[in-house]
Formats: sequence, C-alpha cells, structure tokens
Amino acid sequence: MPELRQDIITGEWVVIATERSKRPESFTARAEVGPDDRTNCPFCYGHEAMTPPEIMAYSEEERKPNTSGWKVRVVPNKFPAFSPEGVLKEFEYGIYRAMTGIGSHEVIIHSPDHLKDLDQLSVEQIDLVLSVYRERYLALSTVEEYKYILIIVNHGPRAGASLRHPHSQLFAIPMVPHLLETEISGAERYFREHGKCVYCQMVSFEMKERVRMVAENDRFVVLEPYASQSPFETWIIPKNHLSNFEEITDSDKRALTGILKGILKNIADNLGDPPYNYYLHTSPLHQRDLQHWHWHLEILPRLTIRAGFELGSRLIINVTTP
Amino acid sequence: MPELRQDIITGEWVVIATERSKRPESFTARAEVGPDDRTNCPFCYGHEAMTPPEIMAYSEEERKPNTSGWKVRVVPNKFPAFSPEGVLKEFEYGIYRAMTGIGSHEVIIHSPDHLKDLDQLSVEQIDLVLSVYRERYLALSTVEEYKYILIIVNHGPRAGASLRHPHSQLFAIPMVPHLLETEISGAERYFREHGKCVYCQMVSFEMKERVRMVAENDRFVVLEPYASQSPFETWIIPKNHLSNFEEITDSDKRALTGILKGILKNIADNLGDPPYNYYLHTSPLHQRDLQHWHWHLEILPRLTIRAGFELGSRLIINVTTP
Repeated sequence: MPELRQDIITGEWVVIATERSKRPESFTARAEVGPDDRTNCPFCYGHEAMTPPEIMAYSEEERKPNTSGWKVRVVPNKFPAFSPEGVLKEFEYGIYRAMTGIGSHEVIIHSPDHLKDLDQLSVEQIDLVLSVYRERYLALSTVEEYKYILIIVNHGPRAGASLRHPHSQLFAIPMVPHLLETEISGAERYFREHGKCVYCQMVSFEMKERVRMVAENDRFVVLEPYASQSPFETWIIPKNHLSNFEEITDSDKRALTGILKGILKNIADNLGDPPYNYYLHTSPLHQRDLQHWHWHLEILPRLTIRAGFELGSRLIINVTTP
Repeated sequence: MPELRQDIITGEWVVIATERSKRPESFTARAEVGPDDRTNCPFCYGHEAMTPPEIMAYSEEERKPNTSGWKVRVVPNKFPAFSPEGVLKEFEYGIYRAMTGIGSHEVIIHSPDHLKDLDQLSVEQIDLVLSVYRERYLALSTVEEYKYILIIVNHGPRAGASLRHPHSQLFAIPMVPHLLETEISGAERYFREHGKCVYCQMVSFEMKERVRMVAENDRFVVLEPYASQSPFETWIIPKNHLSNFEEITDSDKRALTGILKGILKNIADNLGDPPYNYYLHTSPLHQRDLQHWHWHLEILPRLTIRAGFELGSRLIINVTTP
C-alpha cells in the first residue's frame, strides 16, 4: 500500500510508492561523461584567462591573480543567471510584474584537479572549499540588494553540470527564494506550536530511532528525511542550534569537512557514482540567530526523473522508503 | 541583464537569463529511444493479458474485454503510485504525520499503434482519447475519498516515460496537490483584488499583445506564459470561462483536439521531437463553477535540466524570453 508522508517543515506531502521501483523500463538512461577534453577546460591550470577575472583565490604562495598556482579559485560565472551590474528595480509590463535580475553568480573551483570529485579531495582541500563558502557569504552579505545566498553543487550532467571540472556555484539574489520562504515559514509555525526548533526535534528523534540515521560525529548528524523526495536523499544537520552557516566555527567546519567527504564517498561507492545536487540552506541575509531556523545541507541523488505527475502537481513520488 | 518575472497566478518568480543559453557543454545529453521491442510491449494488440484487467475501452465493434480490437484502452497501472484498495486514514509516526496512499492510478493507451505519438494520430483518434479523459473524470469524481484528478503525458524517456507505446496516466488522489493549491489560491487572490478571472485576463491581454501567442481557434488560445518555467512552455486555455475540464462540450472537445494536435506537431517539428510533459489542470473534485478558476492544459518541453539551483530554491531559471 503506498503511503503519503508529510514534510514536517514545509507541510508538503510526498508519496512513498515502493511498487513503482519494480517498473520495467523500455528506455535506458545513464549519466554520460563526454570526452574528457582538458585542453578547453576553463577551470584547469594555465587556462585562467578563459574565465572572467577572478574574485578571490587561495594559494600556497604569493602569486599574481589569474595565473596558476592556486588551490581554490572563485570567478564570476561567464554565463550568469544574475548580474551585479545595474540597479534593482521592480516594474510592470501590462498586467504582469517583473524586476531586474541583480545578483552575483560565482563559480568556486574546488581544486586544480580536472577529475577529482569533492569526495576524492583531501580533507584539507575540502576544508579550503568550505572556507571559501564562508568567506564569500560574509563578503556578499554586506550588499544591501542581496536577500539570499545559495551555494550549490551539480555533480554529473544528469544533475545539470555543464562542465566536468568539479566546482560549486554561488548565487547571491535579490529575493528569498520560494523554497526557503516555505521552509522558514514552516519552521516558524512549528516553533510557535511546539516551542522548539523543528530541526533540533528531528535530530533528537532520529538519533533515538536510528532508522533513517546514516552517520554522525560530535557536531553533525546525517539522515534520510522521513518524507524524502528521492531515493537516498540525505541531509547533514548540525547537532547544535545555529541558524547561519556563515557563522560556523573553524572546528565545526573541520567536522563538517569530514562528514561531507564520508557521505559523498558513501553515495559514490554504494550507488555507482550517481549524479547528485547538494545545496546549503542557511538564513536569509540580514537575519541572524533565528530560534526557529537551523542551517543544513541537503544532498539529492538524481536517480529518478521528475515526470509529468511531479511537475504538474509538485507532489513528489519516491520509490523507496527512507 | 537578467530579469525576474512573477508568475501572475502563483506569485512565484522565474529568472529569465538568456546569457546562459550560450553556455558550452562538455557533456551532451539527448533523448534516447531504446531498442523498439514490441514483443514485450504490454500496450500492443495481443498482449492484453500483460496488463491488469481493463477498466474500460472504446472499440469499433463488440469485443470481449482484454482482447484486441480496441481503439483506446484504460488499465490500472501495474506499478501504482496510488492504490484503490484499503481505507483512507491519517496517522502519526513519532513526530511525523502520514496517510495511506488511496487512489486510482490508470494508464490510458492512446491507440494500438506502438510508435504513433499523439500528434501523429488522426483527429478522430485524439478525440477518443479526450473522451476517455472526460469519462474517467466523471466516473472517478463519485468516489468520496478522491480530492483531485490529474491527467498527464510523459513523452520520451528524459521526460520520465518508461514505456515507448504512447499513453496518458491518470491519478485520482486523496488530496489537492501543492501546485494546484498554490495556483488556485493565487487565482482566488487575483479575483478578490481585480474582480476578474486571472486566466480570462491573461487570454485577453495576450490576444491583444500577440507577442507570446502561438495559435488560436474559435474556442482556445495557445500561448507561452510570461513567466515560463522552460523554453517553449506552452499553455492551451479555453477562451470562455469554465472551471472544470470534465464539463467540456463535444464541440469544445473537437476544437481542443485540433489545437492540441497542431501544437504538439509544431513542438515535434520545430524543436526536433523533444521530450515533454503535459498536464491538465482542472478544479478539485466536488468544486464546480468556480468564478476564479479556469481549467487549462500545460505543455512543458524538457529541453533543460533542473539543477541544484532550481531544486534548492524552487526559483526556476529559464534561458529564453517567452
């Protein structure tokens, strides 16, 4: 019997229908890695001039900007979804409403290595990537027009990656996106009703149940959410209440590095290196120390395709039970 | 300069970022049609025993159920996301909430032809398919537990189709799905504020502007919505206000048949037979003659992939301007 489970934060429902995992497929679809053409990779050493001028970089020694020798490099996205130029303004077009797409769309190149995915880098290198995340959050949070910063990873072409060389993308945007508004207002409602942070509640419930818990260390819990949207959806949640990722301490950052590497390696090893996305959900900018909101990182393996039912209803069908 | 456009119905925003359409891709991904193995196709003549017993069929002459000779055939989905057996009940699991997945998940086989997509069928045959839609809506709307009926098509494996033989799927479900709730409450808010149906307003604005209008006939308008979620997203909207698809008259149904065939053929011919989904948005069950709600059919070509940004924010980036 299929079951509907309610997302405890957003209030939305998910269909858990394990019968559907038995479907025969007359089509096959696999992640396809195209020809590995490093000669045209804008993220490799020696090709720094192929990107727009860098925003920042970490490097071992003194180096001139936009030359090789860097360890992590941040550049503007050459094909941006948001642009820092221009003025933020809303306008009307007949019966409709619009606004200018002010923002910053940045690429964080994880390492000079063209092929090493995040889980294959050293913990020191991953720690540098997370340090860049924190540094860019803090730098961009001073821009008044920006209301939210979202950092994401697309792993594999079927997850939307258009370049092989592993990288994150940062979007600083002039609005709080719909999903975050929904999550945050859901968490606020939970706090009003129960007097507790819903993520703290979830962490303590799942640590007791140990059904959907995947891993833990001193500072973080890794779990599959009860109303998972896809097989093996995985969240990393800090054990202690903290609403803003960018306030993470160095020691928490190191703990996150370890657990992130472990869980991504687990996913790659046990699920055959599937495509996935991850995204960091922190507070909206200029909002700190929220009692009801708790930052976390969501990893979404792309093992199934969202089809007409999901797109036409926004009710997600998951073929496994988390 | 990218632009953000607000969906006039849901209030959600879409990013129109044409720069991003120039991205080079080191990966390629194409719709892949697997080996055309009719010998195992459960939807072809002679294989009627491969499906669960049929719910209904249209046929030229007298025939025994579950034999060949049918023109359109409706069967339960063998791997259902919802099941008509059991009792609708909500329950709690620790801190979480769930309910049983009661419903009907049906497959409407468009014709005996294994390869003919909807746009390649005769208008008479398409009219039969739409008649089946209406008939199943009316039959299932008597079941008290069902709150919404969604009919969808998945065309191509990249749009989620798992079997080649063209078919629609019908889902009768025990709740109004999130997207419909959002659309309907948005339309209700628009009606309160403007005293008019938002779809009627859009039809008259777009017919005047003729910028996003794709086609029209006496009864229907075809347009690309101002805040389209993907390149070439297309809606078919009745010119006259009617909230329930299932009340469609025979003559409107014939007009819909013609315009649907035309627009699907257009999409196939001009965009290289891309994968697409379509879905019919009608009123929730047991709600009729809503002033603020207007049924329509949405067609979503799957030309781009929803990546980490879209999944992590629910803010959609569209690389073309509708």
